[in-house]
Amino acid sequence: MRILIAGVDGYLGWPLALRLTAHGHVVGGIDAGFRRGWVTEMHSHSAIPIAEVGARLHALQGLTGRPVPFWWGDLCDYAVARLAVKSFRPDAIVHLAEMPSAAYSMIDVDHCVYTQRNNVIGTLNLLHAIRDEAPDAHLVKLGTMGEYGTPNIDIPEGFFEIEYRGRKDRLPFPRQAGSWYHQSKVHDSNNIMMACKIWGIRSTDIMQGVVYGTRDGTPAADERFRTRFDFDQCFGTAINRFCAQAVAGIPLTPFGAGHQRRGFLPLKDSMKCLELVLDHPPARGEYRVINQFEETYEILELAEKVREAAREFKLDAAVSCVKNPRIESESHHYNPDRQRLLEWGYRPTKDMASELHGMLEDLLPYKDRILEKAKVLDPSIRWDGRKPESPA
Amino acid sequence: MRILIAGVDGYLGWPLALRLTAHGHVVGGIDAGFRRGWVTEMHSHSAIPIAEVGARLHALQGLTGRPVPFWWGDLCDYAVARLAVKSFRPDAIVHLAEMPSAAYSMIDVDHCVYTQRNNVIGTLNLLHAIRDEAPDAHLVKLGTMGEYGTPNIDIPEGFFEIEYRGRKDRLPFPRQAGSWYHQSKVHDSNNIMMACKIWGIRSTDIMQGVVYGTRDGTPAADERFRTRFDFDQCFGTAINRFCAQAVAGIPLTPFGAGHQRRGFLPLKDSMKCLELVLDHPPARGEYRVINQFEETYEILELAEKVREAAREFKLDAAVSCVKNPRIESESHHYNPDRQRLLEWGYRPTKDMASELHGMLEDLLPYKDRILEKAKVLDPSIRWDGRKPESPA
Repeated sequence: MRILIAGVDGYLGWPLALRLTAHGHVVGGIDAGFRRGWVTEMHSHSAIPIAEVGARLHALQGLTGRPVPFWWGDLCDYAVARLAVKSFRPDAIVHLAEMPSAAYSMIDVDHCVYTQRNNVIGTLNLLHAIRDEAPDAHLVKLGTMGEYGTPNIDIPEGFFEIEYRGRKDRLPFPRQAGSWYHQSKVHDSNNIMMACKIWGIRSTDIMQGVVYGTRDGTPAADERFRTRFDFDQCFGTAINRFCAQAVAGIPLTPFGAGHQRRGFLPLKDSMKCLELVLDHPPARGEYRVINQFEETYEILELAEKVREAAREFKLDAAVSCVKNPRIESESHHYNPDRQRLLEWGYRPTKDMASELHGMLEDLLPYKDRILEKAKVLDPSIRWDGRKPESPA
Repeated sequence: MRILIAGVDGYLGWPLALRLTAHGHVVGGIDAGFRRGWVTEMHSHSAIPIAEVGARLHALQGLTGRPVPFWWGDLCDYAVARLAVKSFRPDAIVHLAEMPSAAYSMIDVDHCVYTQRNNVIGTLNLLHAIRDEAPDAHLVKLGTMGEYGTPNIDIPEGFFEIEYRGRKDRLPFPRQAGSWYHQSKVHDSNNIMMACKIWGIRSTDIMQGVVYGTRDGTPAADERFRTRFDFDQCFGTAINRFCAQAVAGIPLTPFGAGHQRRGFLPLKDSMKCLELVLDHPPARGEYRVINQFEETYEILELAEKVREAAREFKLDAAVSCVKNPRIESESHHYNPDRQRLLEWGYRPTKDMASELHGMLEDLLPYKDRILEKAKVLDPSIRWDGRKPESPA
């Protein structure tokens, strides 16, 4: 298959490019280095050193002997989206080129507007490029489980059959996202659903849980094959931050009482699932939603799991809940489906302990890189828009 | 009350400013003349001549003897939104400053992106300005009945109680909008709902039907008090276009078989309803949705009503359905609620014939202005993105 990855330089994009290439696909990429820039803006860096984009592409070329088709550009520029789609003629496009941080989108009005503009317009441009240049291509779009919020009923995969006042319909499941970033993904979902309907585009919209991990399989000896690992308050996800804290010898900091329940999955499960989605394209005009996570966990439970894993390395990791900077329910019903991936053969990892072990192993050599930037772990961005209180 | 109208120079904004001023409110305005520009871009003009913004404001000042606080600017610029809200200190903000045309948003990728950028970012900026400068202000936002699409079940006012797999919740009613413009309103609804929840903003989101008419009450002798009347394919709504066609002596052109059913309301009902909404502010943190229309009608039925009304003026208006440029169900269930406004005392006009009579009367003196631009009535913008077929 010819697969174009938008956001090929990112946390998920890079290991996906490696895996798909290893499995015989022809991979092309689009990126403009935004993720590196956003993390720099947070005064942080990847805990695990990564190669520059050019070196990465060179390494990828070394696997096949063929140059990797690559466009350096911003999807918010339609010319970039169209050029890449027109030149590469993809069978599938995996769209990972969005600003992925809830906290970043909540910093202030500029970051809010930037996030929604970037994510919504990039997707609109891709949809038009597909319509005009590759109408048969399968758009694989990364959404988030956070689009659903935490309703008091079970969460199906995107759509549900309901009866209301004696009549029935199959309708999109209501979305109740809790940050400007999560809302941008809801807007994308609505836009893609419409494009499939009116233009006959085929798309799979993945409501993905929170990804953690350092590896897709065995650890990469060559630095150029490693993916980034962020631990700052914006681009570090919960488990990744906990692991960085454990390695740095500072307390793990769940928000609030830590009873928020969310879907999580290891990086390698995310990769497997994306590959399964690519192997099962929907029909023309079909907008298909899948929920992608390994299992749901409470945040506090995860901090405890990291603490246990850290003990094997003689790391004594304290857990110390901090005031929740977010505005969210801290105790709620949460029971989302994830049937489709299981039907296609996804076998969830179910071995978080060994995943965490590998992560800590990969991070320990870079303890100094984490300590150097340890301040970026503090949750100073508040959902209510107030400036953080100074410590007493 | 101090009421800030964003989009005060528009079709609804201007008569609303006049009505609220006449009823003793202090009115301020924001506009940048975009509506005039968009209609010019369509190579059209208002059938009824209107005064320039400055002359309008001068006329408004004449009613009270006080200058009208006014900001010439674009809500996509946060400085404009903040300055106006901070200086005027509104009790309520009526947000009518969006690009309101489905067809315009479907022209091409640039118009699609422009529409969503303009509408979504303008609203995000207003929300932040309210949070930071007037947290108690009531945001009255104009959405559209088109956000709901045409589901096979009844349409409640924004939220519904449902049971699913044995559990219950009150959830936002799913939206299935059918154009990039309608989607932009869905995005706004989602963003406003979240802002109310996390920042305690109070807002009424009005899902308004299609407005038609030339007058809010008696016709204005002074040109400066008249509102605009558009008839081009983008900014002319269905009934308004039919009336312009009847006056110009060209066939009325419902799309497709004309069985699409939608909610409609005369301009004066829209004004009454907006005033009722302003008189009933929600509590802090409440996001309230109301459906605002007088009655639902099939498009073909409306064309026939215009035809009848035209007979009184000895105008022989033919009805000639044209190929539907939109992609929409042409035969469907449609039963939306509109309970809240009735509870507050809204008495629907229920006399379309006299409304249509007044419209034709107001338009007849400007037959030449319509004929001069009659080409703009042709629906050349297609939802499938194809160029219009040349006539055989």
